[in-house]
Amino acid sequence: MSINGKNISLNMNVRGLKPSATLAINERCNEMRRAGKTVYKLGLGQSPFPVPEPIVEALRHHAPEKDYLPVKGLLDLCEAVADFHRRKDHVNASPDGVLIGPGSKELMFLLQLVYYGEILLPTPCWVSYMPQAQIIGRNVKLIHTTYEERWRITAERMVDYLEQEDDTYRPRLMILNYPGNPDGDTYTMEELQRIAEAAREYEILLLSDEIYGQLAHRGGHFSIARFYPEGTIISSGLSKWCGAGGWRLGTFTFPKNLSWLMDAMAVAASETFTSVSAPIQYAAVHAFRGGRKIEEYLSHVRRILHKLGMECAHILQGAGIRVHNPNGAFYLFADFSPHADLLRETGIHDSRELSERLLLDTGVAILPGVDFGRPPDELTARLAYVNFDGAEALAASEGIPLDAPLPDDFLSVHCADTIEAMDRIADWIQ
Amino acid sequence: MSINGKNISLNMNVRGLKPSATLAINERCNEMRRAGKTVYKLGLGQSPFPVPEPIVEALRHHAPEKDYLPVKGLLDLCEAVADFHRRKDHVNASPDGVLIGPGSKELMFLLQLVYYGEILLPTPCWVSYMPQAQIIGRNVKLIHTTYEERWRITAERMVDYLEQEDDTYRPRLMILNYPGNPDGDTYTMEELQRIAEAAREYEILLLSDEIYGQLAHRGGHFSIARFYPEGTIISSGLSKWCGAGGWRLGTFTFPKNLSWLMDAMAVAASETFTSVSAPIQYAAVHAFRGGRKIEEYLSHVRRILHKLGMECAHILQGAGIRVHNPNGAFYLFADFSPHADLLRETGIHDSRELSERLLLDTGVAILPGVDFGRPPDELTARLAYVNFDGAEALAASEGIPLDAPLPDDFLSVHCADTIEAMDRIADWIQ
Repeated sequence: MSINGKNISLNMNVRGLKPSATLAINERCNEMRRAGKTVYKLGLGQSPFPVPEPIVEALRHHAPEKDYLPVKGLLDLCEAVADFHRRKDHVNASPDGVLIGPGSKELMFLLQLVYYGEILLPTPCWVSYMPQAQIIGRNVKLIHTTYEERWRITAERMVDYLEQEDDTYRPRLMILNYPGNPDGDTYTMEELQRIAEAAREYEILLLSDEIYGQLAHRGGHFSIARFYPEGTIISSGLSKWCGAGGWRLGTFTFPKNLSWLMDAMAVAASETFTSVSAPIQYAAVHAFRGGRKIEEYLSHVRRILHKLGMECAHILQGAGIRVHNPNGAFYLFADFSPHADLLRETGIHDSRELSERLLLDTGVAILPGVDFGRPPDELTARLAYVNFDGAEALAASEGIPLDAPLPDDFLSVHCADTIEAMDRIADWIQ
Repeated sequence: MSINGKNISLNMNVRGLKPSATLAINERCNEMRRAGKTVYKLGLGQSPFPVPEPIVEALRHHAPEKDYLPVKGLLDLCEAVADFHRRKDHVNASPDGVLIGPGSKELMFLLQLVYYGEILLPTPCWVSYMPQAQIIGRNVKLIHTTYEERWRITAERMVDYLEQEDDTYRPRLMILNYPGNPDGDTYTMEELQRIAEAAREYEILLLSDEIYGQLAHRGGHFSIARFYPEGTIISSGLSKWCGAGGWRLGTFTFPKNLSWLMDAMAVAASETFTSVSAPIQYAAVHAFRGGRKIEEYLSHVRRILHKLGMECAHILQGAGIRVHNPNGAFYLFADFSPHADLLRETGIHDSRELSERLLLDTGVAILPGVDFGRPPDELTARLAYVNFDGAEALAASEGIPLDAPLPDDFLSVHCADTIEAMDRIADWIQ
C-alpha cells in the first residue's frame, strides 16, 4: 500500500526527521501565546529590527517585476553583492562569482547536494548543517570545541583531528560561522590566518557563513577569504543584518577557481527554486549597495545588541551560569553545568530536559545544546536575546547621538521582556 | 585535489547535467538580443501578461512584512488556496492540506526527494520532472504517447504498461499535467475518470500539475482529484494564470490521508527554503481569493490566448506541420515529421538539430522534443506563443466587451511578433 497504509514509501534519510529546531520552537511559542500563555521567545534567531525603510520602499517600487530572473541572480544584485564584500570584507569578489538563493539555507543544502565530500563541523554549530547532510546522505564529522576555547575551532584542533584520520586528503567541506550562531563570538584575524593555513595545507573547502558579519558589535568583521581566497565560499544574505529573514534572500560568493562548484549548484538551482523572487532581488540591490541611512541603521542596531547582550551575559554569569560576553549577532551559548547536581536532583539530565523544563516552569523558550551538535547529556543551551520590539528600540536609539552611550535605563525601558527572561532563568536555576 | 584540480568532487547525479532547458534558452535569447540580433522568444514558457494590479498593490502594501512565516505557509494563504480549489475545481480541499513553496518546481523536487518510489511520466512532459529525478537518483519510466492520442495518456496505455511490469504494486508516482505543457491540450472528464480508476486499482500516487488550470481557453477545467481524491496531490501556483512567474510561489494540496507525505515534505522544506518570502505570500492571498477584477483579467487573457493559439496552429498546419488546435495554456507541440526527408537532406536528423538550425536560420527560438522526454530522433518541438507585449494586448482587449469577439486584425496589431515567428517557421520548412 503506497497511499494509505502504514507501509508508506518514504526516503529513509527523511523518515523520522523532525522539522528544523528553530522553526519548530517558534511555531510552538506562537501556539502557546495563542493559548493565552506568557512566553519569552528566545528560541528563534530572528532579528527584531524592521527592514530599513529605503529597502522596503525599493520593494514597493519594484512590486510589478514579474519576469523570471537569471538562475544565478539579477546582474545588478550580483554586482552589488560583490562590491559589498570588496568594500566591507576587503576580499577580491567578482559578480561572476555570486549566486543568489531563497535564503542561504537553501544554498547550503544545494552545496551539500552537489559537492561530493565529507562535512566537517566544529560544534556548537547552527542547527541545519547536520540535518541537511542527513537528508542528502552525506557523512558528517563533528569537532567539539569547549567553553575554555570560547566555543571556537583552532588550527591546532583541526590539524589534530585530520592527522588522526587515515585518509588525510579525503574531499572535505568545513563550515565556519562567525560571528557565530549559537555562541555570539567570533575569530581574531590571527586565528583566521592560522585556520586558513591549515585548510590550505589539507585542501579543505571552506564554507564561511558570515551572515552575521555586519552584526559584529563593535564592527571590524574579518573574512577568512582574505587569507584563503581560493578555497573559501562566503555565505551571506539579508536575513540578519537587514532584518529581512522572512524575505528569503541569501548569497554565496565564490572565487574564480571554484566556478565548477558554483556552476553545478546553478544547475541544481535551475531544477529546484529556479530563481529568487524578482521584486525581492530588485529591493536587495539597494540593501547591498548600502549608503548612509543603512550604515546609521547598522550602528544603532549594533549599539543596542551590544548593550543588551552584555547585560544578559552579566545576569546569567551572576547566577553561576558559564557564558562568555558576546562580540556579535544576538546569541549567548550558556553552560549550566555548575548547577548539574541541583538540576539532576530535579530530574534534568540533558539539554533537552533542561530547555523543556525551563519553558514549562518559566515561559522562557530557549534551544538545547544538542540541537547545535553538542553531546546530548551536556547542559548547554542557546539564548537568542531578541524578545523585544525592535522598531521601538531602534526609534529610541535614533534619538540619542551615536557618539553618546545609551542611557542606563534603556534596556529596562525598551528590552524589558528580554531582561525579564534572563532574570527568570537566574531565579529558576538558584 | 578537491579545490583546484581536475579531480573535482561532484555528485555523479549532477555531474554533466545541463541547466534547465527553458531557463537556458531564455538566457541564450537575452544574450543574442543584447548582441543586436532579432530573436523571437518562443522558448521560455512565461506568461506575457502583467500581474493583475490588485495583487501588485497587495505586494506594495505588505512590503514591510519581515517575519519568517510558518514552514507550510501563511495560514490565510493556505485557507485561500484550499478555498480556490473548492470553488474552482470542486474538490474537497482543506487548509491543513496546503503546502506553499517558492515555485511548484521546488515542491516537486522535494516530493521526489522524500517519496521513495518510481516516477512514471507520460511524454511529452514538462522539462524538469526528469532532471529532478536524476539529481535525486530516482528511477524514471517514460510512457510515450502519440500525436494521434493528442499527446495524452489513456487509462488503457497505463494498464498495458503496468501489466507488463513484473512488480505491479511497486510504489509509483505518476505526474499528469493538464492543460499541458508542452502540448496545450487537456483531458475530458471521462478520460480523467478512467485514469483515476486505473490509478486507484494499481495504487499509484498522482501529482496532478494543474498550474494551467485557469488557462483552459474556454474555462471548465476539471481536476482528477474529483475522481481520485485519496491519491491525488494538486499542484498549482501564481506563475501562469497570474502572470507572476518571477515572484516564485507554488502550492501543493494534499488529501488528509497523505498527511504523512506532506509532513515529510515540510520537514525537508524547513531544512531548505524555510518558508516562502513573506511579502509575496501576503500578496498571494489576494490572488487566490480572486474577485471580479481577477476573473475579468482571466477572461481577457483566455480570449487572447485562444485566438492566438488557434491562429498559430492554423499557420503551422498550413505548412504541413502536424499540430493540434490548442485548448489551454500557451503552447503548441509540433511534429515536423511530414518534412523529415527534406530536413534530412539539410542535415537535420533530430529535434535538437531542428531547433538549433531554426534559431540560426530564422531567429525563432523553440525547444526540441527531446527536452520533453521524447525520443531524440523524433522531429518534434514545443512553441510557446508568448512573444508579445501582454500588457498592451490586455489593455486593447479590455476595450472590447467580453461578449464580443476580438476584431480580425487584433493579432496582427497586438501579437505581431508571434505571428511573424510562425510565418517564418512556415516559410523555412517549405
